[in-house]
Amino acid sequence: MIEVSSTKNNFVKELKKLSKKKYRQEQGHYLIEGLHLIEEALKSKANVTTIIMTHQGQELLTELPLTSDKRAYYLLSDDVFKSVSDVPAPQGIMALVKLEQVNSLKNLSGRLLLLDNVQDPGNVGTMIRTADAAGYAGVVLGEGCADIYNPKVLRSMQGSHFHVTIVEANLAAIIFELKEKGMGIYGTELNPEAVDYRLLKCAADFALIMGNEGQGVSSQLLQLTDKNVYIPIIGQAESLNVAVAAGILMFSLQS
Amino acid sequence: MIEVSSTKNNFVKELKKLSKKKYRQEQGHYLIEGLHLIEEALKSKANVTTIIMTHQGQELLTELPLTSDKRAYYLLSDDVFKSVSDVPAPQGIMALVKLEQVNSLKNLSGRLLLLDNVQDPGNVGTMIRTADAAGYAGVVLGEGCADIYNPKVLRSMQGSHFHVTIVEANLAAIIFELKEKGMGIYGTELNPEAVDYRLLKCAADFALIMGNEGQGVSSQLLQLTDKNVYIPIIGQAESLNVAVAAGILMFSLQS
Repeated sequence: MIEVSSTKNNFVKELKKLSKKKYRQEQGHYLIEGLHLIEEALKSKANVTTIIMTHQGQELLTELPLTSDKRAYYLLSDDVFKSVSDVPAPQGIMALVKLEQVNSLKNLSGRLLLLDNVQDPGNVGTMIRTADAAGYAGVVLGEGCADIYNPKVLRSMQGSHFHVTIVEANLAAIIFELKEKGMGIYGTELNPEAVDYRLLKCAADFALIMGNEGQGVSSQLLQLTDKNVYIPIIGQAESLNVAVAAGILMFSLQS
Repeated sequence: MIEVSSTKNNFVKELKKLSKKKYRQEQGHYLIEGLHLIEEALKSKANVTTIIMTHQGQELLTELPLTSDKRAYYLLSDDVFKSVSDVPAPQGIMALVKLEQVNSLKNLSGRLLLLDNVQDPGNVGTMIRTADAAGYAGVVLGEGCADIYNPKVLRSMQGSHFHVTIVEANLAAIIFELKEKGMGIYGTELNPEAVDYRLLKCAADFALIMGNEGQGVSSQLLQLTDKNVYIPIIGQAESLNVAVAAGILMFSLQS
């Protein structure tokens, strides 16, 4: 157990850098915070290399299945922990997890969610969590999406990246591959001339594309789909939040 | 037009205080940011008393229906504007809106969304926006909910508080009133022993209760309902984000 009580400590400086994608890739690790996420990581056999705690957080250790252990343990003073933490009321426990080689979609069967330039980390994380809940097999992040190891994405994902396959890829290329496999491809639009989602007859397996918060799915991708659907707005709101729209569609579209 | 180039200016200090509920109530105003929200406010005849801009924001004025005008106009330097703004890339236009007397539910017909101790401002705002989109007549905020004039709530609400009636009230008392009117009252649970939402037969008019992010709807309220519904989780996620769950239910529950 290594004790740290200064924010100038090198280990602490390295931890702070992990809020940036560039450093996560350099260091090959990302940071997860809170008991629930660490439990999910251990259950899913993710490579949890380091546990970081406060004195109070140390009491949570007994709740974790940490047997025969080659992990490093750091005990941080409350102040130092807070300086690294991403939440207003930290539980006092974090862990470093090794970045895994991104999985491929090959040999994956089931429904997929494709995200086109979804920039808000909370939206990306929430949609991955919802895809998990809806029993989707994977999520493909196209260009412009928030990084899944971004602290805010991790927080809203609630460990779902340990359950569903997540791939970063060019969406146009992926769509061609999926079509060759016989999957249905459905885009989403704000345009009432698209198909009302309640009337869509879905293929047995399909991919659903959700788009950017402001612009929606790019017109280039909308031309590659089998059908484009929309959710009719009844009241005066101009649109739905993209993560809410994704939830309505994923729980409603059935083959 | 009053020009301000110092963050120590009294008007600027007052603006900054408006991020806190206490000061909004003292000053009787709240702050909205961005062209879209100001347009919605003007369209809805909200009392927009003051327009605050940067030089760049001034160009957006022509897009607003600001006829025969008794409003105050402030021109802020970019730095000063940024010090007040709540967004990473400000458009350069904000407005002060007079706090309205909170409406009552009397004489209101239609569906209602009741929020029990929903703490995250983004969730509260997103649910009000979704209620608007789903054609709900009103939203009741019970104790413990984020304040609707909180800047983050305003941002995720996207102007829907100008479209639906919003009331702060004790939920138990409201539920008794609504029952007397003959409305159905439906709670939400994470418990698979509750009714699968797809099987619920809804009353013609009803209220749906969504609960706290961690604890859900309080057990006290769940005992006052006609039925409690749940959304079956297919994958490994333990739960859905509350705003996503609300979206699925509001767009799916039909009488």
